[in-house]
Amino acid sequence: MTSHDIADLKDRLRRVRASAEVAGVDALLVSPGPDLRYLTGYDAIPLERLTCLVVPREGDIRIVVPALEVPAAMASAVGQLDLEVVAWQENDDPYALTASLVGAAEHVAVDDHMWASKVLALRDAMPGVHQVAAGPVIAQLRMRKSASEIASLVRAGAAIDAVHAQVGGFLEAGRTEREVGADIADAILAAGHVSVDFVIVASGPNGASPHHELSDRVIERGDTIVVDIGGTMPDGYCSDSTRMYCVGEPDAEVYEEFSVLRLAQAAAVASVAPGMSCEAVDAVARDYLAEAGLGEYFIHRTGHGIGLETHEEPYIIAGNHQVLEPGMAFSIEPGVYRAGSHGARIEDIVICTPDGHLNCNRRPHDLIVV
Amino acid sequence: MTSHDIADLKDRLRRVRASAEVAGVDALLVSPGPDLRYLTGYDAIPLERLTCLVVPREGDIRIVVPALEVPAAMASAVGQLDLEVVAWQENDDPYALTASLVGAAEHVAVDDHMWASKVLALRDAMPGVHQVAAGPVIAQLRMRKSASEIASLVRAGAAIDAVHAQVGGFLEAGRTEREVGADIADAILAAGHVSVDFVIVASGPNGASPHHELSDRVIERGDTIVVDIGGTMPDGYCSDSTRMYCVGEPDAEVYEEFSVLRLAQAAAVASVAPGMSCEAVDAVARDYLAEAGLGEYFIHRTGHGIGLETHEEPYIIAGNHQVLEPGMAFSIEPGVYRAGSHGARIEDIVICTPDGHLNCNRRPHDLIVV
Repeated sequence: MTSHDIADLKDRLRRVRASAEVAGVDALLVSPGPDLRYLTGYDAIPLERLTCLVVPREGDIRIVVPALEVPAAMASAVGQLDLEVVAWQENDDPYALTASLVGAAEHVAVDDHMWASKVLALRDAMPGVHQVAAGPVIAQLRMRKSASEIASLVRAGAAIDAVHAQVGGFLEAGRTEREVGADIADAILAAGHVSVDFVIVASGPNGASPHHELSDRVIERGDTIVVDIGGTMPDGYCSDSTRMYCVGEPDAEVYEEFSVLRLAQAAAVASVAPGMSCEAVDAVARDYLAEAGLGEYFIHRTGHGIGLETHEEPYIIAGNHQVLEPGMAFSIEPGVYRAGSHGARIEDIVICTPDGHLNCNRRPHDLIVV
Repeated sequence: MTSHDIADLKDRLRRVRASAEVAGVDALLVSPGPDLRYLTGYDAIPLERLTCLVVPREGDIRIVVPALEVPAAMASAVGQLDLEVVAWQENDDPYALTASLVGAAEHVAVDDHMWASKVLALRDAMPGVHQVAAGPVIAQLRMRKSASEIASLVRAGAAIDAVHAQVGGFLEAGRTEREVGADIADAILAAGHVSVDFVIVASGPNGASPHHELSDRVIERGDTIVVDIGGTMPDGYCSDSTRMYCVGEPDAEVYEEFSVLRLAQAAAVASVAPGMSCEAVDAVARDYLAEAGLGEYFIHRTGHGIGLETHEEPYIIAGNHQVLEPGMAFSIEPGVYRAGSHGARIEDIVICTPDGHLNCNRRPHDLIVV
């Protein structure tokens, strides 16, 4: 971590405390996961022993850590953040310890990913305290990406683009989705990701299931194939991009439908700018498909935020009045799903900028015929 | 899934309902994670959209699934379990839906890994209902492994043993922990695991941090090295084994200390049999080290259960009165940690059998000099 990164983390801790105060929260409790990494740089593995950042409304910020994890915690940015590390031994009660650090409180927020076993143990250790989800409080920070986070997402986009550039070479009639998926997984790592988060190779009728992953289905000539892939970069930021492929020339009707989808996706991307609401961006894609008679086949929201998680705020969905601001990053991924026949989806990660938007994914959006 | 596997899952659903009734729970709510996989065979990725198995005290068992995940759910064993799949659309409220399926209830149990955001949304959707952690209810089943689960753990043990058989060849003075770790990660996948769960290569003073993972430290001649590695097999069962290595001949004092640790670990393994308590097994290792004057350097519990998770019940720790029964599987991994100098740990996965125990890890326990 550079001194600039450390200053950034300290600033996040200051801002999350302010955000908690506005929300009427007396203390914020954050266990291992993306929120802890965002606030402290500590990428702790979620395990059964309690690790918990305690951000009270006033006074010192502390982190409760199992004694045997203290060296790992101190080796992370936690060691440079002037946080007091409160260690507990194997036979101590870390929940009572955490409750004692919180002190008198009416409302305590727990991070969205905290395990139920820990949420309920904290509830029991703090009788009379009302627990709320910290998601909205922390999302106020996380959904507004800094310049360095934008750079991270651009790098992640370039890495997954480098994989899509190879996918055409992996696809061939006679190969199974699983075989193609294995090549893609190798390419995701070779492109600089540290983990493969998902590999969807949905050929022919499998494309009609938006979250189909891999099967032993043999790819046939004439199949359209949805390839939706993503991974996590060394700095924790995620990639996610979908392109459409076809083995041999596509059926004319399928190609026409794809062309409508392509325009719907491009229109939604083009609409991204400060002041647009999330639901308005969703409506751009949805209305476009509906006007072409494809509305009933677009069965999911238009997109999801992305950052340290593949899915995070803001969600591009009807009912989400959140207004876009520079630094918000999310997917634009309308799709068309025809059960029993085929499916199609095109997805880019887009970042709202002061003058419009930046597209992290720069591969051609055509149906790629291999 | 074979029909035998399906019968097994149906039996688990029957038994977990009985276990919930004994615990005074009116309904069990299980989101994606190891509990859902154990009960239904559905290895759903935990995401923000609610997927939730609803096991009421009486009546039909149902599973709430986002509409776009229905094909994936039905392609899993869920499609063969006679469960009613209740789909929700993108703009529905899945928490109100789940509450309506639970109906009248006083106590509802949520799975240990359910995200806080979901726990609290379910709490708000079911006012007046007391939430408890489902962990103890489900652990009653999960900690007693069936013959096929034992076979799975034996296969996982053989896979990680095959990796340890290669580790000596990866270790060399002048290489960094990270370089060695990359080779080990490749070998974990090549040995049949589908994921690398952790790779600890803790050389010299880094060995004193039990959960040190990898660093850029260059391995030097004379270093002892803790290598603690594990992954997940295609059927979801985990491996976990630690062996000690030394580059060149070890220091005489270090070797003597290692020899004591080796005997302590062997004594604890040998003590495993039905009727022994978890804390008694812990005490065997702890007392052995204490008698040799090493007690203060053994700073963690002796072990953890293992199965669909690397860490699960039963924990081999002081205060755990759980009596061992055939089918219980856990690690035996005492260690000695000397801050600033070095550390040592030896770990096997052991399964309690009617006549004693079975060791899943068969590599030599010596300090391996390379």
